[in-house]
Amino acid sequence: MTFSSLDEKYMARAVELSQCGEGDTHPNPCVGCIIVSGDEVVGEGYHSRAGEDHAEVLALAQADDKARGATMYINLEPCCHQGRTPPCTDSIARAGIVRVVCAMEDPNPMVSGGGFDVLRTAGVDVEFGLLESEARWINRGFITRMLSGRPWVALKIGATLDGRTATESGESQWITGKEAREDVHKQRARYSAIMTGSGTVEADDPQMTVRLVATEKQPLRVVLDTSLRIVADAQIVGDDGNILILTGSTDVEKRIALESKGAEIVSVDVNDDCGIDLQAVLEELGLREHNDVFVECGGKLAGALLEHGLVDELIVYYAPSVLGGSARGMFDTRTVERLIDRPQFRFQDVTQIGDDVRARAVYPPSMELIGCGT
Amino acid sequence: MTFSSLDEKYMARAVELSQCGEGDTHPNPCVGCIIVSGDEVVGEGYHSRAGEDHAEVLALAQADDKARGATMYINLEPCCHQGRTPPCTDSIARAGIVRVVCAMEDPNPMVSGGGFDVLRTAGVDVEFGLLESEARWINRGFITRMLSGRPWVALKIGATLDGRTATESGESQWITGKEAREDVHKQRARYSAIMTGSGTVEADDPQMTVRLVATEKQPLRVVLDTSLRIVADAQIVGDDGNILILTGSTDVEKRIALESKGAEIVSVDVNDDCGIDLQAVLEELGLREHNDVFVECGGKLAGALLEHGLVDELIVYYAPSVLGGSARGMFDTRTVERLIDRPQFRFQDVTQIGDDVRARAVYPPSMELIGCGT
Repeated sequence: MTFSSLDEKYMARAVELSQCGEGDTHPNPCVGCIIVSGDEVVGEGYHSRAGEDHAEVLALAQADDKARGATMYINLEPCCHQGRTPPCTDSIARAGIVRVVCAMEDPNPMVSGGGFDVLRTAGVDVEFGLLESEARWINRGFITRMLSGRPWVALKIGATLDGRTATESGESQWITGKEAREDVHKQRARYSAIMTGSGTVEADDPQMTVRLVATEKQPLRVVLDTSLRIVADAQIVGDDGNILILTGSTDVEKRIALESKGAEIVSVDVNDDCGIDLQAVLEELGLREHNDVFVECGGKLAGALLEHGLVDELIVYYAPSVLGGSARGMFDTRTVERLIDRPQFRFQDVTQIGDDVRARAVYPPSMELIGCGT
Repeated sequence: MTFSSLDEKYMARAVELSQCGEGDTHPNPCVGCIIVSGDEVVGEGYHSRAGEDHAEVLALAQADDKARGATMYINLEPCCHQGRTPPCTDSIARAGIVRVVCAMEDPNPMVSGGGFDVLRTAGVDVEFGLLESEARWINRGFITRMLSGRPWVALKIGATLDGRTATESGESQWITGKEAREDVHKQRARYSAIMTGSGTVEADDPQMTVRLVATEKQPLRVVLDTSLRIVADAQIVGDDGNILILTGSTDVEKRIALESKGAEIVSVDVNDDCGIDLQAVLEELGLREHNDVFVECGGKLAGALLEHGLVDELIVYYAPSVLGGSARGMFDTRTVERLIDRPQFRFQDVTQIGDDVRARAVYPPSMELIGCGT
């Protein structure tokens, strides 16, 4: 396909619009839509929340009669199935849109090109592949879940510039500064789930909620707790029941204490070598329709995720200090004997935040899965 | 002092000009000069090399008669003493310059405001303090040597994103990519001396020369070698004699072998706890008029420099990979027990270089010494 520079401009706007829903649309993807008649933008919309109108419907409503003969730009293939809302393909054809330009196919097996087929059958010109990589990155979580059944895993680490996350005794509050901590809360707010391990709960008694920035909802707190060591009055358990504990323990008494505080407890397999079966944990979250999960944990869980190839994205906040000596490292892993065998990531962006630096790196196989290439 | 926006513009140009000599002027500072008559720039110059004309002289020659009644902008106070070249103050006054704007006083005790006095006595208006911080940063090495007698120490480290510099067995070539390695050579070319420890020489047999970028001269190679373990056929010894070995050993046979290859060997004190007396080493380099030294070494020497507060600037190249486990860390130091006691730096800039990230951090006490505040 070849696209004009105007096509590119309008698609960039659709992609931009889609991001307005970031963090609020789950389990749905982020979708932005713009309708152009001649040189005039006659309608815009973005999906803001599951159950609410789709981006296409909002843009069509705004365009009204002007949709007839117009071109629609969307970052994702329109749905052709009845979900919480009716199929968009019908509304698009009915409104008289003559050309639909999409960034990418919907990876949802219930759509996956079917939306394009319906439109084409209705006589609409369909083109796709414009700004595809950008669009795929925005919906990396949705794509990962659709294709692999598990959420996209973003691992956040706060460390000194020599890669240490805590003193030998475990002191880690606070290595990074105020602005970095605020940025972490901003990140948390984008995810539907935040995951940690019982070691971190015991050491820091964190709340794992979004507090330093405004938010309309709190992510689900997920705790991996092999032997159910977490206590019922831990701050993370809270009182609102927004917590899922995954454990290999069958201790009824402990379960009852935690359940009485509103916690949901689910049994998962425990392996001899690495504790809880991480793949099973992530599949459980996938079944619960979490597109992505934000992980904040210690070196043990971070190392286990890394060794299982389950870190899709690394978000490291570096503080300009040094701990050296025997301070704790980012990843407890088996020793990498040869340099050539080390896990490789790719830096995505790096930026100064207050006194600290935030670096984001992605795992090339994960980028390939979501179709962002390497 | 208050300065106009035109003053600022011209001083920015003088500062820019001064940087043209970066890496080539030692032991002299970098100086740029611009002469403005009315709205017209009538002369420009920068100091390119010790023994060559000073920036002021070059700019005056270019301005010729137009210097009469003009304003001169310089990043550093003009010299008032006879050095390798005659004092600039005389030429400035003689040429009829009526106003001199400087970024900073010359920290050289032989000048240190004396240049301003001479100019004022000759009837020239003198103002200083414009873009002072930028100007001080450019000549951080010269200022450090003038005020403390030792060079500015820039420590370069290449590491994985979890702060590991080598596998457990010591394999470290190459953690970072081609572009980062080229950038390291570009950095090396800016220094008059490159320092390492005998451990690195034994492990990697490096040349420690500037090869991947063009250069007119090679920095002095400096090796700290407590017990003279370095062998005469190590690549770093080379054949051109451009190497200084500092040792506590008195082994005559070893000395002769190294000296026969052109190496200069100097005895320094050795302490029980940390090997060679680092302060004495740096003072030796200061006496030899090295303004700054680029250090590339292993965790032991890096840790010792850090613990002695002798790392003025850290240049870390992060590769997007992980070594984890028991891989080597950046700094072998005593354990920092409490978070509050950790050495603190300040990020200066951070940028992606090829597949890697380069972060530069400075040591606040060093910044205070050179007058760049914190």
